[in-house]
Amino acid sequence: MAVGNVRFPEMKQIAGISLGTSNAGIKQTERDDVLVIQMAEGSSCAGVFTQNAFCAAPVHIARQHLQSSPRWLLINSGNANAGTGKQGMLDGMRCCDALASVVKGSAEHVLPFSTGVIGEILPVAKIEQALPAAVSNLKEQNWSNASQAIMTTDTFAKGASITIDIEGETVTLTGISKGAGMIQPNMATMLGFVATDAKISQALLQKCLAGAAEQSFNRITVDGDTSTNDACILMASGCSSAPEIIEDSENYKVFANAVMDICKKLAELIVRDGEGATKLMRIHVEQALDNNEAVLVGKTIAHSPLVKTAFFASDPNWGRILAAVGRAGVENMDLDKIEIYLDDICIVKNGGRAESYTEEQGQQVMNQEEIQIRVVLGRGEVKQEVLTCDLSYDYVRINAEYRT
Amino acid sequence: MAVGNVRFPEMKQIAGISLGTSNAGIKQTERDDVLVIQMAEGSSCAGVFTQNAFCAAPVHIARQHLQSSPRWLLINSGNANAGTGKQGMLDGMRCCDALASVVKGSAEHVLPFSTGVIGEILPVAKIEQALPAAVSNLKEQNWSNASQAIMTTDTFAKGASITIDIEGETVTLTGISKGAGMIQPNMATMLGFVATDAKISQALLQKCLAGAAEQSFNRITVDGDTSTNDACILMASGCSSAPEIIEDSENYKVFANAVMDICKKLAELIVRDGEGATKLMRIHVEQALDNNEAVLVGKTIAHSPLVKTAFFASDPNWGRILAAVGRAGVENMDLDKIEIYLDDICIVKNGGRAESYTEEQGQQVMNQEEIQIRVVLGRGEVKQEVLTCDLSYDYVRINAEYRT
Repeated sequence: MAVGNVRFPEMKQIAGISLGTSNAGIKQTERDDVLVIQMAEGSSCAGVFTQNAFCAAPVHIARQHLQSSPRWLLINSGNANAGTGKQGMLDGMRCCDALASVVKGSAEHVLPFSTGVIGEILPVAKIEQALPAAVSNLKEQNWSNASQAIMTTDTFAKGASITIDIEGETVTLTGISKGAGMIQPNMATMLGFVATDAKISQALLQKCLAGAAEQSFNRITVDGDTSTNDACILMASGCSSAPEIIEDSENYKVFANAVMDICKKLAELIVRDGEGATKLMRIHVEQALDNNEAVLVGKTIAHSPLVKTAFFASDPNWGRILAAVGRAGVENMDLDKIEIYLDDICIVKNGGRAESYTEEQGQQVMNQEEIQIRVVLGRGEVKQEVLTCDLSYDYVRINAEYRT
Repeated sequence: MAVGNVRFPEMKQIAGISLGTSNAGIKQTERDDVLVIQMAEGSSCAGVFTQNAFCAAPVHIARQHLQSSPRWLLINSGNANAGTGKQGMLDGMRCCDALASVVKGSAEHVLPFSTGVIGEILPVAKIEQALPAAVSNLKEQNWSNASQAIMTTDTFAKGASITIDIEGETVTLTGISKGAGMIQPNMATMLGFVATDAKISQALLQKCLAGAAEQSFNRITVDGDTSTNDACILMASGCSSAPEIIEDSENYKVFANAVMDICKKLAELIVRDGEGATKLMRIHVEQALDNNEAVLVGKTIAHSPLVKTAFFASDPNWGRILAAVGRAGVENMDLDKIEIYLDDICIVKNGGRAESYTEEQGQQVMNQEEIQIRVVLGRGEVKQEVLTCDLSYDYVRINAEYRT
């Protein structure tokens, strides 16, 4: 039930980054559920992780191992290894050990990631058995297989690939993401793995990723639930012929924009695959005093079940949008200054329904699959965008049936 | 689709408080949609109102008129007179004027309340025409009719009635409430009208109501949306033979407890009628450092669509509860100290699934219609309760079809 065109794109390979998948049968047997990503020696690697206080065992381990120049990522779907206590930490480490032994590397150079059901013990033996096949499959062209191996309730595989020009040399960025539910922006809110052949230091790569995640993965929400396992990793192999990207340079700006661009594409795909989604809503909050209040208003609208069900019904019930803006908690808001637009149609002005507005106009916009909600606060000059989807019967069905 | 026993109780009359309803045909013609409540001269009246920044026109007017010893309440259902700009304020005042002219009183002694769809112009002429009939029906025994006239998406009428003994004399409290959606605690979160024959000053009555609302209406949530129109009014006619209730007395404690008691009953009925609700969840957060964090954890669980859909499915998916506790935003929470219980069954201990726990035990509790979720934080000594309901297909249906 994806919203819009979500065809899997042509994925350009990244020299120095290879991927291999295999089937461990963790939750299902039809498709691969284990992914190994190998980075060439000398690669840089940056990461952002969930802000959930009870983050899962693999997040703890990945955060720690990120400090020791990682060479491998090990991802499994079907089981999140979250809420698994000390056993979960031991299991996560056992997976790192197992991969290290297959690739003849060191366990602290492995970053583990898990996604799937919370609270069940990770079937480590199954993953161990699947590792040799995944490693023997390692190839630079395996991005499509990789994107499928990390899916859980996703209905389509998510990828994006772009190239930029750095001083006449091509630099490529290619990434995959997964996520459809338990999506609420707080650092990174899903799994995302982005690779580039650019040459760039770990510190600068981290800065670049943190900035991009804030404006992409942290601006989407499906259901307001921040997962225990969210992570986004940015790998840079340094294999392109372009010069090293250094701080405060023109090249850095171009590269940082490209990272932002691919992160936004991957984030938007998650909303397009929001559990049960039939519509994509782009909420633009304008003329805010600062970023905080712009995002606060945007997310309050995005999280309102009443707004989301109205969009599902294609009902231009703008009163629900207005009520959500009003309860966002922004102090001293002046209702008379607020304007709300559905695409180009002004629906609220001077504290009530815009005089020019007709239900037919609103209905026409609501019938679309993608809708912009523009809220003008009349307080300052800051604007921010939040993406979300509607709330449908299928959201309830998917989440009521998840474990059955 | 009410949860549990919601039979309308025997409603004891309150001497000095009379009620009359009539049909204005605002949204429907089958049942009365206008209610007038008249207080005997010399009554005290207290009120708490929505914290939504864009509160509706009648809320502005009622807040203002509360200062001038009100004698009448005028409530209509079917139209909220919210998001209606300056016209809405004029319309609200016209309704007060119209009632004042029928009862030969003064408009500033009328408190107006509206509930229903947001953003449509109030059909004032219809309400004006219905007022003489409502006024001629004014009777002390009309509580049941009154409870029906204020319903919107409610599936049953909500009332509660209790008596207490004050120095050998009986004091009675009787109240009605309405609400099923757009329910999130923030001051008062629905319409509630409670009357008593106690004799008590306006100031003390206000203190008493504010305390009770905080622990009752502000501890319930259906969908996290704070309405633009919420209000709860407490009227005291002073007609009982009991002595006046004065501050810091034993009588005040007894009376304040009774107000708390009736407010909790009326609030719980709203959750039992939560849109599409099939289950009532009582979330007890214990061993918190302070009230704020206890309520924050309780509401984060209560607002999680993933928790709510799991309960709808009777799925003991405790990982979703744990994830919600983790993202509540409480600083320095220690996962190892957290315990979570479904009724008496310990499901989480030492950072993961309790060793003694079996799915069968969890399933048995989840099959019930009323469930207690007890979260022990291991940080302090404060406990708080939040009530909510599950999220079902019918929630989506009711809110997708609301205006059609």
